[in-house]
Amino acid sequence: MEIKVNTGILSQNDRKAAENREIFDRSGLLVINIMGSPGAGKTTILEKTIDLLARQIRLAVIEGDIYTSKDARRIEKYGVPVKQINTGGACHLDAAMVAKVLGYFNLPALDLLIIENVGNLVCPVEFNLGEDIKVAVLSITEGDDKPLKYPLLFRESGVVLLNKVDLVEFTDIDMEVLHRDIRLINPECAVFEVSARTGRGIEEWAGWLTEKIKKSIQGA
Amino acid sequence: MEIKVNTGILSQNDRKAAENREIFDRSGLLVINIMGSPGAGKTTILEKTIDLLARQIRLAVIEGDIYTSKDARRIEKYGVPVKQINTGGACHLDAAMVAKVLGYFNLPALDLLIIENVGNLVCPVEFNLGEDIKVAVLSITEGDDKPLKYPLLFRESGVVLLNKVDLVEFTDIDMEVLHRDIRLINPECAVFEVSARTGRGIEEWAGWLTEKIKKSIQGA
Repeated sequence: MEIKVNTGILSQNDRKAAENREIFDRSGLLVINIMGSPGAGKTTILEKTIDLLARQIRLAVIEGDIYTSKDARRIEKYGVPVKQINTGGACHLDAAMVAKVLGYFNLPALDLLIIENVGNLVCPVEFNLGEDIKVAVLSITEGDDKPLKYPLLFRESGVVLLNKVDLVEFTDIDMEVLHRDIRLINPECAVFEVSARTGRGIEEWAGWLTEKIKKSIQGA
Repeated sequence: MEIKVNTGILSQNDRKAAENREIFDRSGLLVINIMGSPGAGKTTILEKTIDLLARQIRLAVIEGDIYTSKDARRIEKYGVPVKQINTGGACHLDAAMVAKVLGYFNLPALDLLIIENVGNLVCPVEFNLGEDIKVAVLSITEGDDKPLKYPLLFRESGVVLLNKVDLVEFTDIDMEVLHRDIRLINPECAVFEVSARTGRGIEEWAGWLTEKIKKSIQGA
């Protein structure tokens, strides 16, 4: 019975995600959906990425949070359009929530729309938003067992950002295990070691993203 | 419509949790429900706590995970009874899942039953399991903004363990903000700074827990 209900909600979400997808395609922009645990460093990575890209890429941000606007206020400082979605208790964004705020942006004038999801390694990946690429952020302080314990996000993501690598030497993490298990789950995805705090690896990740944006614009 | 469905599932869970609660009361043991983000350090804290308490306290463990038995295998090494629950995709334990495995334990012979929930800062707290005390584990590497962003777990918890404090000096965390915001949300809860890796603070937390167990046994 419960499964039936969930299936209903999911396929309803998939329909709405397909509508978002059409809008994004018509507008010719790349859309990424950033997911990861609370505190994995999604917003800090976003800040560093915007700092690097905002002069050459026309971008906007949707911030997903349960209650607060803390992250949106952080992004506003960079002078890019940002819209907050508060889920009011829900542990993930869904396609309908995203659809509701798309009117706030001039989508055809954008190259990149970044959606930062609610901090949660489990639920958000089950709800497509119509994005081109899912981005997984994992802090190395979370431990090397996380890809096998929470495989779905890693399986679905086009790129994995291993954040806080400046802390590797102070933890018991085995980076080889981490890379091996991500490859096991998803041999195709790009993986970058980054430190949003020190800036390490951000240029490489931003370069990869820029290539994807170029291809998206050529394809449109 | 969706809200109706959720309310139904929740009150069904509350009924089942009340049944668990009766069983626990009859058995005269303390039950704790440990929650926190993936990688907050729940299992490592558990290992250190068991190592300290298992000689004087009769305890058993229920391990909640989505797919794997990695955590249960870690706990088995300590020679305490442990039962794995795999939620098969669900992002939290519910009272019915817990009820199903209670038969594996000789509950009246126990002082303490520890339930480690699925790694998730959002959903598990919405599902009572019949426990006496909710325990929140937050790694300081997750950042000092987490209590205000995910208030429900902190509001409901009897104790908050701030883990990985050995990493404070390598991060930008403001411990005063963290303590202040937890107090703001929940003036009553106990808060311990711990490092499961170095052992710091584990004795203080285990001492607090032992006091609660004693009171529970006296009350039974």
